Amino acid sequence: MISRKMEGLVKGSSVIRAMFEEGRQMAEKYGAENVFDFSLGNPNVPAPDEVNAAMIDIIKNTDSVKLHGYMSNAGHTEVRLAIADSLNKKFGTDYDENCIIMTVGAAGGLNVALKAILDPGDEVIAFAPYFGEYNNYVSNFDGKIVSITPDTQTFQPNLSEFEQKISNRTKCVIVNSPNNPTGVIYSEETLRRMGAILEKKQSEYGTVIYLITDEPYRELAYDGASVPWVPKFYKNTIVGYSYSKSLSLPGERIGYLVIPKGADGAEELVSACSVATRILGFVNAPSIMQLVIGKCLDASTDVSYYDRNRNTLYEGLTSLGFTCTKPEGAFYLFMKSPLDDEKEFVNIAKKYHLLLVPGSTFMCPGYVRIAYCVSYDTVVNSLPMFKKLAGEVL
Amino acid sequence: MISRKMEGLVKGSSVIRAMFEEGRQMAEKYGAENVFDFSLGNPNVPAPDEVNAAMIDIIKNTDSVKLHGYMSNAGHTEVRLAIADSLNKKFGTDYDENCIIMTVGAAGGLNVALKAILDPGDEVIAFAPYFGEYNNYVSNFDGKIVSITPDTQTFQPNLSEFEQKISNRTKCVIVNSPNNPTGVIYSEETLRRMGAILEKKQSEYGTVIYLITDEPYRELAYDGASVPWVPKFYKNTIVGYSYSKSLSLPGERIGYLVIPKGADGAEELVSACSVATRILGFVNAPSIMQLVIGKCLDASTDVSYYDRNRNTLYEGLTSLGFTCTKPEGAFYLFMKSPLDDEKEFVNIAKKYHLLLVPGSTFMCPGYVRIAYCVSYDTVVNSLPMFKKLAGEVL
Repeated sequence: MISRKMEGLVKGSSVIRAMFEEGRQMAEKYGAENVFDFSLGNPNVPAPDEVNAAMIDIIKNTDSVKLHGYMSNAGHTEVRLAIADSLNKKFGTDYDENCIIMTVGAAGGLNVALKAILDPGDEVIAFAPYFGEYNNYVSNFDGKIVSITPDTQTFQPNLSEFEQKISNRTKCVIVNSPNNPTGVIYSEETLRRMGAILEKKQSEYGTVIYLITDEPYRELAYDGASVPWVPKFYKNTIVGYSYSKSLSLPGERIGYLVIPKGADGAEELVSACSVATRILGFVNAPSIMQLVIGKCLDASTDVSYYDRNRNTLYEGLTSLGFTCTKPEGAFYLFMKSPLDDEKEFVNIAKKYHLLLVPGSTFMCPGYVRIAYCVSYDTVVNSLPMFKKLAGEVL
Repeated sequence: MISRKMEGLVKGSSVIRAMFEEGRQMAEKYGAENVFDFSLGNPNVPAPDEVNAAMIDIIKNTDSVKLHGYMSNAGHTEVRLAIADSLNKKFGTDYDENCIIMTVGAAGGLNVALKAILDPGDEVIAFAPYFGEYNNYVSNFDGKIVSITPDTQTFQPNLSEFEQKISNRTKCVIVNSPNNPTGVIYSEETLRRMGAILEKKQSEYGTVIYLITDEPYRELAYDGASVPWVPKFYKNTIVGYSYSKSLSLPGERIGYLVIPKGADGAEELVSACSVATRILGFVNAPSIMQLVIGKCLDASTDVSYYDRNRNTLYEGLTSLGFTCTKPEGAFYLFMKSPLDDEKEFVNIAKKYHLLLVPGSTFMCPGYVRIAYCVSYDTVVNSLPMFKKLAGEVL
């Protein structure tokens, strides 16, 4: 009774989401303090105070029809202009309100961008490990995902394989840095080489290849690391941003797309994204959240909170003998599974009430993802459980 | 550089939305008070006071992580339960939280439901005149829309043509009552006959045919008219609701789907809609708006405001010699175009700063839609302009 495509999806469902539900059930059974749920990227840090203050101020001082009514599908003009100005200050760019389309989070933005550009059979390249939802987003528009195998030494994209796999059907490439699930920041050198490869391939095939950069973690970088601004390295870049993590607003669904003026077909692309926003049923990003963002462009989440979790977890796990990549950004730690089959390892971990996500969900088996956007207590109290787990498997 | 499907859509774009943008430009040029923009269903009535009060209360008294964080893709459990209880009280049904999926407005809900059920080539029946976006929603999932010609006497669905056009590929039927653009409420008699036809055809073909009822205008009914609860007349009904009009919150994108327990494949359908919510990029309906709805189930918009507009406009236009269907609900008036080509009529009306939407947008040429969700002054001051228009065309 449901569609054939959905039948498979319902059966597979999202491993991460299924674990989220499982975690809730375990918490009810054993008490929340006895369950160490590292499964979902749901920030445990409250939104900055400015957010709720701005929200109340806006509610009290904005005409209701303006506040809650329709606006252009691309969003409130003054908010888009404020975001463009803010990006211009940070990155020395020349964006205006027409470069910005407000979206229902980054997930909404990616779907809008893919709807705008993909014809059936078009190829979309992604670098493993990557967020498994990309597979579904691409499939929504009958695109074909082409996965590049991971470089497990650095978790920087494998550019030689990338170059080989670009074809005349390659319509776009998706990158995500700081990366989910590895926490790695793609370096300037990586992006420069990637841009050069794309330029070369565009000339070779006479095509336009868009680089979509999914950046919900842009603001979460540690040890003073800077996250390169991808459009600097390749003009046909589309940026997808979200405030889910940077302002701890994942449930409110607010983000934006940037389509730089200089991108090939920029004007057409902006129109297409606006129409896609409408016909996919988003219509527009939630109005009040747009207005809140317009007032909170300088607000930021408390990165030191995640940093403490990161250090405690990384040191704790490596001292127990686990092999981990030290995250440079985001709030995920990617750990090598001591067992060949990481799903078996994940199941054993559940015995100790440790909820981890198998790397195969990210097209990278043999690893697990630990989302440390949890309370510090959860991190600290999980370590004795990880010790027991180490005792069983190492 | 954009997809072939989008090329056509960008060119055609939405006539209604294009007019919305045109109206804004005209308002800047001539002054808002001199432009009579009847183009968009954007309520001019403020949201009820309870809405903003509830919002502030929730912001002040809810833990930030709960308030702004992720929840199940289907939405906050307690809100879904409250909605189910409220429907049960109103309609004597037996719904629980599992029957309700919170959506990004009705547009989001319809896309979710169609994604859940449509295989490429499946047929979706709609009764002209109908909201033109249905064409795009169905096309998003490669369905094929089958349009039933209007009965321009009553604007009730033409059920004899309906019966003939149901095939073994008919996957669903979309109805919308109170209707956009006619304001007609589909009668109990209509729905009873429609249900019987669907039952018969399901048996004949051995298929399941869902009836999707798009109900953003359910609360807007005049002269004591009641809007029948569609699932009473056919068990395989999916209800799509939105608070855009009933609480004047169109920009906030909040609504829900109801999947009644007794519907064929209900459990599977609920799972599929939940997964569709996630993978289409909605992820969940905006969190704060869900919580607000949970507190405002008894709030309602001021229908008398629209009623006054309705009566003034209907009497004004008919006394000028225009032929109109008197609306029973919603906030649209469907008027016969005095010219065969209603697009020409719409263009002439623009000279008098009257913005109307051509009926061909609703698969019903020869008529125009007048959205009277505007200020009373706009209605009153538009009548002298309609008089000049009548002088030119009647």
